[in-house]
Amino acid sequence: MFGAIEAGGTKMVVAIGDEKGNILEQKEIPTTTPQETMSHVVEFFKRDNVEAIGIGAFGPVCVDITSPDYGRIGKTPKLPWVNFSWKEAFEEIGIPVAVDTDVNVAALGEVVYGSAKGLSDMIYITVGTGIGVGVYLGGKLLHGMMHPEAGHVIIGKRADDHFEGACPYHKDCFEGLASGPALEARYGKPAALLTENEDVWELEADYIAKAIMMYICCYSPRKVILGGGVMHVEKLFPMIREKTLKYMNGYITAKELDDIENYIVPAGLKGEQGIKGALYLAAELKR
Amino acid sequence: MFGAIEAGGTKMVVAIGDEKGNILEQKEIPTTTPQETMSHVVEFFKRDNVEAIGIGAFGPVCVDITSPDYGRIGKTPKLPWVNFSWKEAFEEIGIPVAVDTDVNVAALGEVVYGSAKGLSDMIYITVGTGIGVGVYLGGKLLHGMMHPEAGHVIIGKRADDHFEGACPYHKDCFEGLASGPALEARYGKPAALLTENEDVWELEADYIAKAIMMYICCYSPRKVILGGGVMHVEKLFPMIREKTLKYMNGYITAKELDDIENYIVPAGLKGEQGIKGALYLAAELKR
Repeated sequence: MFGAIEAGGTKMVVAIGDEKGNILEQKEIPTTTPQETMSHVVEFFKRDNVEAIGIGAFGPVCVDITSPDYGRIGKTPKLPWVNFSWKEAFEEIGIPVAVDTDVNVAALGEVVYGSAKGLSDMIYITVGTGIGVGVYLGGKLLHGMMHPEAGHVIIGKRADDHFEGACPYHKDCFEGLASGPALEARYGKPAALLTENEDVWELEADYIAKAIMMYICCYSPRKVILGGGVMHVEKLFPMIREKTLKYMNGYITAKELDDIENYIVPAGLKGEQGIKGALYLAAELKR
Repeated sequence: MFGAIEAGGTKMVVAIGDEKGNILEQKEIPTTTPQETMSHVVEFFKRDNVEAIGIGAFGPVCVDITSPDYGRIGKTPKLPWVNFSWKEAFEEIGIPVAVDTDVNVAALGEVVYGSAKGLSDMIYITVGTGIGVGVYLGGKLLHGMMHPEAGHVIIGKRADDHFEGACPYHKDCFEGLASGPALEARYGKPAALLTENEDVWELEADYIAKAIMMYICCYSPRKVILGGGVMHVEKLFPMIREKTLKYMNGYITAKELDDIENYIVPAGLKGEQGIKGALYLAAELKR
């Protein structure tokens, strides 16, 4: 049996399952302080014979397994969690952990069980509270110096967009212009209440397509998967596909781009990509 | 003995050397038509006992070794070379070839012999006639669906820049704003004649820094190496370093970024990164 944690800023999803991705039990625990939250989390996993736990964590988090800081959270606005160590948290109950970013485990879930099954190169973009990109290239999750933070790319604000941007670090980076909170800040109401306003989604699709065009140039993925709260607005997909091809303007030719409907797609696991990816990460640790 | 080719749009550099990167003989051959150019290229390699040839080619080129089109050039403005196959060209003299992009082999040269020696994750950016990025991640050159074409990312034109951009596909993408020909088109003279004009280099450094900020977010490289004709303007380096940190605005913290002088650096092989990387690619084929 394996454990999985999808660690977000507002809640932790914890689950127990098998190496085939079957989830046997799942629970949500609010994210408050490490002391409070982790007592419930540890309690959940104590009850079973859990061999290893896979964790998809909000970042920045050390994902370098050779580092003494493996599993440790870095500088984050979630202040109580700065320096918290996922590895140390489970040492007291003797369960080994495998840690990656929330978006990387979601990418892994889609590669193993979802829309990108069997592909060696793909990206998973979440557009929600934040924007992040999970990157799987050459059959491996990308880490590098730290891990990608590709939601913060500069995409150029459109001339008719007078919103200054919501990113505390970069104002009008991709996340600053197109995340859920950016939409709410620009229009004064949550994205869910804006679904009838066509201009909202035309601009949103435009920014997402610009970013995808850049990610295709940078990563050369065989598939682009979109998830996260904002992507529940299904009409975004055809607009994003059309605009991505427009921005690419025929520069890159590939059979995958000729079949754009199957190239830019929603997450196949419909919200379970993170937790199933985390489960797989745990199982991999024991392989 | 191994062969190496750095195949550019105006000339081919051909060389013979050993697996340690020592170049024993080198020659330049103008790039005209495949018939004319390749007769000289093949002649050069015929004279020696060459076990394999490594090729760093202008793109798009098929770098998927499992594909029947491996080594074949795709849709390029260099019309006589469309559909030309590097593999077939050397079949008649029985020498196996290893093919990657010009920037990928330059990245490889820097990883094996240059400024990025031993690193698992780095990028090599060339700013010259065009802009391209060689990407080496997790100990491998990045290919994916095709290969990266990261010179064409959208970086947002600066409000005080009234040049429309020189990229035939995207107008004001990174290459369209900051390549050598873009500088010449914007100011009406070649980059080499503009060295005294501080505004030229402030803008150029700005665009390059914006792109590097994005590449760091996307690739999380342990080092960023800059080469190509435009980068001979050495005063660009300190400006680029400062502006990259400014655009990053403390979002990503890493010991590498704290040592920015050793993070964003010129090519260690001073122009030989491509040919030495190609030589290594050939030697790898026989390993």
